Amino acid sequence: MFKYNHLIKVYYRDVDQMGIVYYTRYLEYFEEARTELLNSLGLTISLIEDRGIQLPVIASHCDYKRGAKLEDKLVIEASIAEIPKVKLNINYNIFDKVSNKQLVTGYTKHAFTDKFGNPKRIPKFIFDKINIHFQKK
Amino acid sequence: MFKYNHLIKVYYRDVDQMGIVYYTRYLEYFEEARTELLNSLGLTISLIEDRGIQLPVIASHCDYKRGAKLEDKLVIEASIAEIPKVKLNINYNIFDKVSNKQLVTGYTKHAFTDKFGNPKRIPKFIFDKINIHFQKK
Amino acid sequence: MFKYNHLIKVYYRDVDQMGIVYYTRYLEYFEEARTELLNSLGLTISLIEDRGIQLPVIASHCDYKRGAKLEDKLVIEASIAEIPKVKLNINYNIFDKVSNKQLVTGYTKHAFTDKFGNPKRIPKFIFDKINIHFQKK
Amino acid sequence: MFKYNHLIKVYYRDVDQMGIVYYTRYLEYFEEARTELLNSLGLTISLIEDRGIQLPVIASHCDYKRGAKLEDKLVIEASIAEIPKVKLNINYNIFDKVSNKQLVTGYTKHAFTDKFGNPKRIPKFIFDKINIHFQKK
Repeated sequence: MFKYNHLIKVYYRDVDQMGIVYYTRYLEYFEEARTELLNSLGLTISLIEDRGIQLPVIASHCDYKRGAKLEDKLVIEASIAEIPKVKLNINYNIFDKVSNKQLVTGYTKHAFTDKFGNPKRIPKFIFDKINIHFQKK
Repeated sequence: MFKYNHLIKVYYRDVDQMGIVYYTRYLEYFEEARTELLNSLGLTISLIEDRGIQLPVIASHCDYKRGAKLEDKLVIEASIAEIPKVKLNINYNIFDKVSNKQLVTGYTKHAFTDKFGNPKRIPKFIFDKINIHFQKK
Repeated sequence: MFKYNHLIKVYYRDVDQMGIVYYTRYLEYFEEARTELLNSLGLTISLIEDRGIQLPVIASHCDYKRGAKLEDKLVIEASIAEIPKVKLNINYNIFDKVSNKQLVTGYTKHAFTDKFGNPKRIPKFIFDKINIHFQKK
Repeated sequence: MFKYNHLIKVYYRDVDQMGIVYYTRYLEYFEEARTELLNSLGLTISLIEDRGIQLPVIASHCDYKRGAKLEDKLVIEASIAEIPKVKLNINYNIFDKVSNKQLVTGYTKHAFTDKFGNPKRIPKFIFDKINIHFQKK
């Protein structure tokens, strides 16, 4: 498993009139965390797209256990559990940084496509960056 | 089953640099459609909250099949498949209005809580509005 | 002056923990209204971009007088006061549909650019669609 | 003048199909920066609201000079130019962190109100935190 912890803070724009983070905002936090996860592997989205590859989301899932509140600091843990072949699956765990309580879990699944949206197998330059973390040491 | 079709149009704010709707925006469309579904039952969110009840999302799921594009007109079909007891489950189907192609499917699950977030069974005034559509005619 | 009235409804995603619409959401309503204004002139953003023209925002301004609330119905009045030359200036007035009270006023200014962001004068096909509404009848 | 520099990164959710940050997103960056500015003064929004004070935006303005792109790192400089009396005025300057080029400038004006939206003069606990930075040393 390859894991990355990304820290965010909840701002006014994120919070609804129940006083908790609006449900789609957690999926934006997921996006931040997966971007940083890929970054920590030496892969930026800009670089991937410059090489003609896109990573559209094909499924997303969220379980909301506790609502985050204004100015809470959250840890977004993003992880890759297995070496991707035709899909990239990323899991997320959101914790309150102070209380360490779990707030949200979820996942996203991504296809690899060319610029025209045609599905492809995982490109070698992406595979190599991920694979290296799954080899015995 | 009780069903409602809500029509929306894709605006610039919704579209990402792949030229397709950003993945969390479909969940905003879901919210519009479930608000209108409840409205068609004679229930507004404002009224429900005035009576001390909240409907926080406890799970969301989306399968993305085709990406909607700028200025596409979409039909968001929201439906309730069964009479809710402790959770309100709503299913969604997003179609392109012109081609009738299916773009996204998904669901949300909602708890009934008081203002402090304590879970409750479905309040009678909500149950009655939904139940009437599941009786034999 | 050329004017268009666009109707929207306030959803949960728009409202912050003060119970009023978050301040950037009105600018999204502006975008909806100007898209429909252009549409009413026979111009879609998709068509304009297909012809190699972009309309990036170069200035935005909002004065917030009263906050809109959940499930309020709002009229977004968008208008063009004068025939554009190098910039397209659009003014907005947001009213509550029921009370008719003014909530927000503002404007956006747009450049005409090619795909590379180089500024251009107003393209003839856009000028013609707007100009026709400013001729004496 | 009291100034705070806040660093952000541009994510996919922020970027539109022109490949630049969507125009309302800069106002969300403004909000992040002013929250951190206040925080650097020892004031959190949560604390201010707990004391019964709200800071609704009454005006916002943005001049867009250059568009930020995906994964750009931006410095959001927020500053208070003068001691507030009945309004809090905050100015913003957005720079690209690498090139140091100016992308966006703007301001927001905020009222001080009670929970019911009634305007008030600046509360003493806020005044004191700001005033201290405007005294001769």
